[in-house]
Amino acid sequence: MDLDFISKLKKPADTKIVLLVIDGLGGLPRNHDNKTELEAADTPNLDNLASKGICGLQQPVLPGITPGSGPGHLGLFGYDPVKYQVGRGVLSALGIDFDLKPDDVAARGNFCSVDENGLVTDRRAGRIPTEKNKELCKLLQNIELKDSQFFIETVKEYRFLLVLRGEHLSGKLIDTDPQMLGKKPLQPKGLGPDTERTVNIVSDFIKQASEVLKDQHPANMVLLRGFSKRPKWPTLKEVFGLNCAAIAAYPMYRGLAKLIGMDILQTGQELKDEFDTLKMNWNKYDFFYVHAKKTDSAGEDGDFNRKVSKIEEVDRQIPGLLSLDPDVIMVTGDHSTPSLLKYHSWHPVPVIIYSKYCRSDNVQRFGERACMSGGLGSRFPAKDLMPVALANAGRLEKFGA
Amino acid sequence: MDLDFISKLKKPADTKIVLLVIDGLGGLPRNHDNKTELEAADTPNLDNLASKGICGLQQPVLPGITPGSGPGHLGLFGYDPVKYQVGRGVLSALGIDFDLKPDDVAARGNFCSVDENGLVTDRRAGRIPTEKNKELCKLLQNIELKDSQFFIETVKEYRFLLVLRGEHLSGKLIDTDPQMLGKKPLQPKGLGPDTERTVNIVSDFIKQASEVLKDQHPANMVLLRGFSKRPKWPTLKEVFGLNCAAIAAYPMYRGLAKLIGMDILQTGQELKDEFDTLKMNWNKYDFFYVHAKKTDSAGEDGDFNRKVSKIEEVDRQIPGLLSLDPDVIMVTGDHSTPSLLKYHSWHPVPVIIYSKYCRSDNVQRFGERACMSGGLGSRFPAKDLMPVALANAGRLEKFGA
Repeated sequence: MDLDFISKLKKPADTKIVLLVIDGLGGLPRNHDNKTELEAADTPNLDNLASKGICGLQQPVLPGITPGSGPGHLGLFGYDPVKYQVGRGVLSALGIDFDLKPDDVAARGNFCSVDENGLVTDRRAGRIPTEKNKELCKLLQNIELKDSQFFIETVKEYRFLLVLRGEHLSGKLIDTDPQMLGKKPLQPKGLGPDTERTVNIVSDFIKQASEVLKDQHPANMVLLRGFSKRPKWPTLKEVFGLNCAAIAAYPMYRGLAKLIGMDILQTGQELKDEFDTLKMNWNKYDFFYVHAKKTDSAGEDGDFNRKVSKIEEVDRQIPGLLSLDPDVIMVTGDHSTPSLLKYHSWHPVPVIIYSKYCRSDNVQRFGERACMSGGLGSRFPAKDLMPVALANAGRLEKFGA
Repeated sequence: MDLDFISKLKKPADTKIVLLVIDGLGGLPRNHDNKTELEAADTPNLDNLASKGICGLQQPVLPGITPGSGPGHLGLFGYDPVKYQVGRGVLSALGIDFDLKPDDVAARGNFCSVDENGLVTDRRAGRIPTEKNKELCKLLQNIELKDSQFFIETVKEYRFLLVLRGEHLSGKLIDTDPQMLGKKPLQPKGLGPDTERTVNIVSDFIKQASEVLKDQHPANMVLLRGFSKRPKWPTLKEVFGLNCAAIAAYPMYRGLAKLIGMDILQTGQELKDEFDTLKMNWNKYDFFYVHAKKTDSAGEDGDFNRKVSKIEEVDRQIPGLLSLDPDVIMVTGDHSTPSLLKYHSWHPVPVIIYSKYCRSDNVQRFGERACMSGGLGSRFPAKDLMPVALANAGRLEKFGA
């Protein structure tokens, strides 16, 4: 649904919506009893919510498409993830809580190995440890650029963040990563007009970086990817008329929420901290996004049982959530992360929309196969969940007379 | 589906389609037995149709969107209601059977109250009775405009219709309703070029109206909204190759049908009259739209039991309909009107498509939860029902070789 279309229909109401995202929620069945992680989990509270709500499977992007965390979340926030794309440099910045300004240009950096002829021999510099990365970043921070301020931050292992800050910078540059071994890193190059200034700054940075790093084999060179600026998108307030707060222990998710104008609430590392934060701020906002991360990590580790137990942890928070008496609760994931695959996957994700007016279906259990026959159908577009939540919260005018 | 696309595939056939619209059909469950109005109703004939047909829930506009009667019907007629929008002035004219000419400009009028400084103190003039409205309209009819003919008609309570008839009129004017108290009515203003002439005529009308009404407090001023011309859309004949007739006791629905070229059949106020009209005209048309209104009115009154009994009244007409042996019958509503909400709602609407070739599903009962698992799915787009009906009626060519 077009954001312009829905935006014209928004109306105020004294109602509250909670979006609970259980990261990587969807799974695949294990062999011995053919149950997915969610089906194997003991989730009496989520089952109760499912039996009173309307359920289904939602499709984060499009059939067969495996979403990254960015697209997975943007769909849930009501933004078509195909249309609203975040550059990888920007996502890297969000991922380490870097306070990106509107005109900054961010890029993902890799430390890599090159031979005496400057040809790439390892695109990841032997996956150096994060501690080594930090030392190298300190060296790079000594570089001086004529025409721009810059920031270098360690991300993890061989990955770092480069942010340029200055006037008239462009994010429209190609990657310098040649994507194969035995080639030289590519020269920085602009895509379209008004990129020359930035190309010169980046070239200068790379030249100096190769000098600084020349004795640091295996990490004796850098590759830069995903040059991008923070997108200028309509906020959730502008589109849906909602005052929104994000509660997420991990920086990337706070960053995504910030991109569309949510307030970021201080919280702790545990699920319980997040729900305490929700309670403490209950009167201050119309919409709360609460993010549960550890299900996804367990899935990525291929740890079926740990994913089950992390789902059960979320389940135990549901009575507390219900005691706040939200008008609408949405429970889903940003994508599937089956332990079997140890990675994000394309499978649609179970979803519950719970409200007094949701018109409940016959689903009695929160699980992949149970939700398939729910009232939302088995391929409900993620980006259309928000309008349904708004409708249930009495926050949309009638369309036409 | 695009009308151009489907239009190229139409082919003639000696078959008949009936679209029975049970207004506001969809509902929400009552507390004591968790049944909706349709589920609570005793509908042996509709259940029989459902068990032989293919069922589902159709989505009038988009997820979460509550349709007005205009968009709700246009979708059922095969016209994308987001693309084909009718102005509110035109809808008002249709609603009182006003014979709008192609170049007329129609606007909704409100009688309102203003204080001695011309500031609006009541946008609805204390909801004056319809009889008073009629008196005031007579006064307004004495106005003389230099450059245009005009018509003033009572709608109801504080609402009237203004129609301008003349040359080079534009419907692209903003509302004069300031939408809040304590402000003056807005000056008429055009949106874009070629509006000046109409702006002058409307300004002249408003000036004279305020003179005529100055001693008529609380109805001592007018507000005008939804300026619009009758849209020029392809007809059902052009798009689908169908000779169409509309049978509707209420003027608004006849008006909508007229917009897309249906013949309007004379009929009575009762459901039985409408089905008699259907029988009498059976040989004359390919497509019949039959409208049952009273279910919606009962829903808007919050009268669950009356809505149940109005659904049962429709059910009793089904054997008569079947005795005509239509090739295709579609039964659905233009939107949901749950008694619980007393208002149109966003919930998808049960639908049956019945024909010899429909490929029946397992649905045995016409109801919201039963149709959820039908062959049309739980979110079938309303605008795609007509192509399915045409296919079942042998009225579409194969696409491609």
